[in-house]
Amino acid sequence: MAAGETKEAIWHGGDLATAKALFPQAPEPWIDLSTGINPIPYPFPALPLSLWQRLPGKSDEAALLAAARKAYRIRPQSGLVAAPGTQILVELLPRLIPAANVAVLGPTYGEHAPAWRKLGATVREIGDFAEAGDANVVVLVNPNNPDGRIIAQERLVELAAALAARGGLLVVDEAFADFAPETSLLPILREGALVLRSFGKAYGLAGLRLGFAVGEERFTDALRAMLGPWAVAGPALHVGAVALGDAAWLSHAGEARAADSKRLDALLAPQGRIVGGTTLYRLLETPSAASLFETLGQAGIYVRRFQHDPSHLRFGLPGNEAEWARLAKALVSA
Amino acid sequence: MAAGETKEAIWHGGDLATAKALFPQAPEPWIDLSTGINPIPYPFPALPLSLWQRLPGKSDEAALLAAARKAYRIRPQSGLVAAPGTQILVELLPRLIPAANVAVLGPTYGEHAPAWRKLGATVREIGDFAEAGDANVVVLVNPNNPDGRIIAQERLVELAAALAARGGLLVVDEAFADFAPETSLLPILREGALVLRSFGKAYGLAGLRLGFAVGEERFTDALRAMLGPWAVAGPALHVGAVALGDAAWLSHAGEARAADSKRLDALLAPQGRIVGGTTLYRLLETPSAASLFETLGQAGIYVRRFQHDPSHLRFGLPGNEAEWARLAKALVSA
Repeated sequence: MAAGETKEAIWHGGDLATAKALFPQAPEPWIDLSTGINPIPYPFPALPLSLWQRLPGKSDEAALLAAARKAYRIRPQSGLVAAPGTQILVELLPRLIPAANVAVLGPTYGEHAPAWRKLGATVREIGDFAEAGDANVVVLVNPNNPDGRIIAQERLVELAAALAARGGLLVVDEAFADFAPETSLLPILREGALVLRSFGKAYGLAGLRLGFAVGEERFTDALRAMLGPWAVAGPALHVGAVALGDAAWLSHAGEARAADSKRLDALLAPQGRIVGGTTLYRLLETPSAASLFETLGQAGIYVRRFQHDPSHLRFGLPGNEAEWARLAKALVSA
Repeated sequence: MAAGETKEAIWHGGDLATAKALFPQAPEPWIDLSTGINPIPYPFPALPLSLWQRLPGKSDEAALLAAARKAYRIRPQSGLVAAPGTQILVELLPRLIPAANVAVLGPTYGEHAPAWRKLGATVREIGDFAEAGDANVVVLVNPNNPDGRIIAQERLVELAAALAARGGLLVVDEAFADFAPETSLLPILREGALVLRSFGKAYGLAGLRLGFAVGEERFTDALRAMLGPWAVAGPALHVGAVALGDAAWLSHAGEARAADSKRLDALLAPQGRIVGGTTLYRLLETPSAASLFETLGQAGIYVRRFQHDPSHLRFGLPGNEAEWARLAKALVSA
């Protein structure tokens, strides 16, 4: 890694090597709270060696897509495509609509705006739909990352219809909707909207790389054509199908993580104000964010800070009692 | 699967569900000889759960790329990008050069031509470079699939230079070069050529999804931008780095599969003429190809046939003595 990259990389979560480089004296093992990934993963099913050996088959993919349709309550009329993670869909999406005028409801996940800019689109960050103006593409994350803001379904339906009427598109990234299914647009999805779903966050298996796009077939067909056959690995197709078919696990995990979130709120309360979050992460606002990031880093605890607001820190959930204890101790010393 | 798709799908290898649908009475387990995937996979290293749980880190990817550079003897000046399989690179490649006039040296792997056509390119299949004419993109597979034809490095270097001079590109798909490293363009790669490498075939792990593109940085950077970060799963980064670093295994596997190929040639000799192949597959020419495909299918053995030449069948290698015995028996009864 070049020297210039180190400074840039600290603003992204999820790369422990970067945290280690920033705090070389920190105790091991590191506790990575920099992402919104469920720390208690779906219990990993046995993987037959054949899933690794052969090309993924059509029936493997069909089983995954059927499980996704049911779990996400996707309308039969909607097109559905699976990808090796949602990020590649974020990168390819701007190729669906030429020379777009894009409004991103922010602050939010940082990868949407640059993906559109790379393709020559004009991108503005807006704080409210009212500022969308003549944008033909509006992008939002619902529930939002990092603040957990939820946009009501009716407003999304209205906006999608308005965009559809002028040949535009509403992109709704539902990466954190698994534990808040009532927020999802999928059961009432009509034209004008494309919805992204991520498997790895709620199921705690981000390294598997599995994500989905749902929307009009002309869009999902175009994405499928760009990905080609076999873009999703055999093990991901299998694990995804099993896990998405396990509604009981999801329900139990949602309750357990909600309890963890409350526990985290209580731990963080003395440090500042919880200004948002979801079941998988909490957003803390404090004027001491910079020094708190430093104190936690020295203690081997990696949290997410933000370029757009240096008073905010995002905390993922600890995964076991040892991690909770280390976090509590580090916070007391802050 | 719709009825129309069944007929189409039988012309592709690698999807056993299709073979089963064609021959519902065949004995189980099926023997899949329809691909050129090494039936003896790289011994699978232990996978820490963390590889599944967290997003793939920069250091995981750096380790894979370093191993690939060494294993494939990639020049330090060449750009290198990893992808979830080579197929997605085949799909995205046509986006590197606008409105191309493409010549594909054929017959060859069937996915190159349609990927360029989808983007509006004019694609011709040529039997010799001399027919390339004013094409600004020439695509070839070296060693070729299915006939094993090898184009000498000097000719490739010449052609790449000629294409570079008019802003064009030579695409060399080296999916089957692992066991024929002397054929690879990579150690002498200059401008004007982009080389594809597939991990899954030689290492017997096609379901893992791992492939590479090597060439000028402006091309590999553009491919990386389309894929985004984290396109390759954590386990694939890890297994790929370990396996590509194991030169001894590759050398031993190459010798063992070469011996298997000779054994297969001997078995097939009474059926027709071996007209080509590589260490991982053999191409049989026989006027009885259609009935032989049928006889083998009835016996639960799936081989590859070809729309462009109904007298050809491609045989992958059996993976154990039981499979060899079943193949020998089925061939005797043919």
